[in-house]
Amino acid sequence: MKKYIYPKKETWSYLCQRPYIDNNKVSDVVEKIFNSVKQNGDSTLLNLAKTLDGANIENLKVSNFEITNARDLVSDKLKRAIKIAKSNIQKYHSSQLVKEPKVETSVGITCWRKNVAIEKVGLYIPGGTAPLFSTILMLGIPATLAGCDKIILCTPPQSDGTIHPAILYTADVLGINEIYKVGGAQAIAAMSHGTETIPKVDKIFGPGNQYVTEAKSKAQSLGVAIDMPAGPSELLVIADGTSIPSYIAADLLSQAEHGADSQVTIVSHNEFIIDQVLNEIKKQIQLLPRKNETQQSIANSRAILFKNERECLEYSNAYAPEHLIIASANADDLINKVVNAGSVFLGNYSCESAGDYASGTNHTLPTNGYAKAYSGVSVDSFVKKITFQKISKEGLENIGPTIETMAAAEGLQAHRMAVSLRLKSLRNE
Amino acid sequence: MKKYIYPKKETWSYLCQRPYIDNNKVSDVVEKIFNSVKQNGDSTLLNLAKTLDGANIENLKVSNFEITNARDLVSDKLKRAIKIAKSNIQKYHSSQLVKEPKVETSVGITCWRKNVAIEKVGLYIPGGTAPLFSTILMLGIPATLAGCDKIILCTPPQSDGTIHPAILYTADVLGINEIYKVGGAQAIAAMSHGTETIPKVDKIFGPGNQYVTEAKSKAQSLGVAIDMPAGPSELLVIADGTSIPSYIAADLLSQAEHGADSQVTIVSHNEFIIDQVLNEIKKQIQLLPRKNETQQSIANSRAILFKNERECLEYSNAYAPEHLIIASANADDLINKVVNAGSVFLGNYSCESAGDYASGTNHTLPTNGYAKAYSGVSVDSFVKKITFQKISKEGLENIGPTIETMAAAEGLQAHRMAVSLRLKSLRNE
Repeated sequence: MKKYIYPKKETWSYLCQRPYIDNNKVSDVVEKIFNSVKQNGDSTLLNLAKTLDGANIENLKVSNFEITNARDLVSDKLKRAIKIAKSNIQKYHSSQLVKEPKVETSVGITCWRKNVAIEKVGLYIPGGTAPLFSTILMLGIPATLAGCDKIILCTPPQSDGTIHPAILYTADVLGINEIYKVGGAQAIAAMSHGTETIPKVDKIFGPGNQYVTEAKSKAQSLGVAIDMPAGPSELLVIADGTSIPSYIAADLLSQAEHGADSQVTIVSHNEFIIDQVLNEIKKQIQLLPRKNETQQSIANSRAILFKNERECLEYSNAYAPEHLIIASANADDLINKVVNAGSVFLGNYSCESAGDYASGTNHTLPTNGYAKAYSGVSVDSFVKKITFQKISKEGLENIGPTIETMAAAEGLQAHRMAVSLRLKSLRNE
Repeated sequence: MKKYIYPKKETWSYLCQRPYIDNNKVSDVVEKIFNSVKQNGDSTLLNLAKTLDGANIENLKVSNFEITNARDLVSDKLKRAIKIAKSNIQKYHSSQLVKEPKVETSVGITCWRKNVAIEKVGLYIPGGTAPLFSTILMLGIPATLAGCDKIILCTPPQSDGTIHPAILYTADVLGINEIYKVGGAQAIAAMSHGTETIPKVDKIFGPGNQYVTEAKSKAQSLGVAIDMPAGPSELLVIADGTSIPSYIAADLLSQAEHGADSQVTIVSHNEFIIDQVLNEIKKQIQLLPRKNETQQSIANSRAILFKNERECLEYSNAYAPEHLIIASANADDLINKVVNAGSVFLGNYSCESAGDYASGTNHTLPTNGYAKAYSGVSVDSFVKKITFQKISKEGLENIGPTIETMAAAEGLQAHRMAVSLRLKSLRNE
């Protein structure tokens, strides 16, 4: 971890940089996969399952038997945990379904909007070393709360052609039973173009490696919406003299273990705390099974001493972290100064892994500085907000002349005429 | 206008196609402009103002004098109209600022989210044949309601180097005074990269031609957010026996006059009404100053007879129109069947141009089928929703074991440790 002491403002933009990722080769591969999936559909998917996942698959779709069977393969302890997490996430996300009032903007003119669920959504859950069933909760719960008509899930098969039971079980708990054994860019291509088996969707959600990220950007260029642009995970911690160094070290390591390109940052106006955190990291990292990746990510990471808390906050806003822990005594007062962040954790006991799993907030969040303009996934991500307006005869008489004047000034005579014609016939009534 | 009678479902996807636009050449030009703006900043912008807009400009930034002067150049009638429109738009958009509750998801765990304005936003207003000052209202009002810190506006200069007074006046009314004389792809490039004069922004809004659209997509790939992907304007009208043909014809023409690539559609289960509308179009089009573009766009357009109202709605949802007019007797009952649309106008007096200017709803809406997954611009478009969570000692004791179990099952030991460490020290307290 590199330590910086009172860095000058001119260096901040350098200090806000994320590890560079070269995406050039990835783009060609993804382009080819999209073309092949478009032309050959399922047969490309089956071939790629063989060559990329090492899995011989007959049916892309997971059978009901496999789903039912998964119930027996997941421990009761994990089942209980998943259900508690589900309950918290559901409770919090339900609060996002706020109804807005109808507004009479002038006499006879009423405007309002309505949340309408996106009809078809596709959730992508990566495979790899661990089954990320928690992400199914984070995407599936808002999707079901929104009321999406069709929710499909794609995830790569293990080399024996099966899907990890924790993934199947979690999907089952949410009532998601259209699950396909397809991973990587080919999963995103399938949901973008549609194949014989896999339906085309309106919006694609979920994390993934560089190929998946590039594929989602390709999907977007084809007119399929995506949750948000993605990048490696990140955490910034603001600490003061009351922070507990071992806790902060553990939090930084928990984010660093995601992968070698993750980035974690500790900022404080208290150098003693920073040094203690750095020491704790050295100790705790020895105990981690993912020590290698974690060490690489820690090498990309920064400890920065600032003059005061205000500067810590200012830097944090410039960096716009995905996760922000404010482990300071006056965390509650600092809330109003947070301008750019994905999700914020307050105090010594709000560890970031709580938000990853079970506190109730969503863990699909903007990375790579996108928190300056993007929000994390929520029920909003699964709906369109359609506006409605109803104008009475009286309403049109009220507002008609305004529209005529503006349309004429913009040189749009047909716009004007649509009003004039109506006003004229009302006058003749 | 092509007329289709009881088209089979298999033909619907063909009948939902938009006019094809070839974007290949545009992409190269835009790429070059971005590179040039990145390297040479203001000097590229000044050069392009000369070659593309035919304008010799000394200062890219509009002076206070020019803004004050515009007040004298706009007629009182237009000023009044702009102020009435502003009041309605403001009244409706204010209703979108709904506060969500704090939620205690389990004892000791509180989650909530907060709307925080995007700091720097850039509004693009096209030039061309007419000054689109109404779009300033549609973008500037939600931006100011959201509380964006920096709102800049780019718009191309007229050949005499000035900006149309209606544009300056409208911006002034909203308190937007950072206005730059730069248009087209170079405006988007300037707001994406920043130049000596023009600041880099976090999100770019606004309509434009193919170059602007391509530039916004390029901006997005550089990490700058955009309002939504864009395409030519469109309107679909659902009519029944109670609809008034001359009104519908006027509405279809008002959307068709936007440009040769606009598309309008009339669907009904009443053939008599369709034929009357087609006749009315032939008559009314003769009166329009933009007769040529309008005629081309009408040629791209469709009149479709369906068996019943249910089918009309079903097709409309498949097409996902930007604007939908339901000019039927039971418009109110059909609201709940609208799944995909940008903005909906109910009854015979809710003409589409009302929403374009002054009813209160936004006119920046998803086109090209994007209404399946995107919403129109609203106050939401100018904020991030940041989640917060505060977990007490008791809260962590409650939820800690759940997190430990899930993290271990996902193979993320450092995630687990961040909790275990805290639980251990709580037990020793």
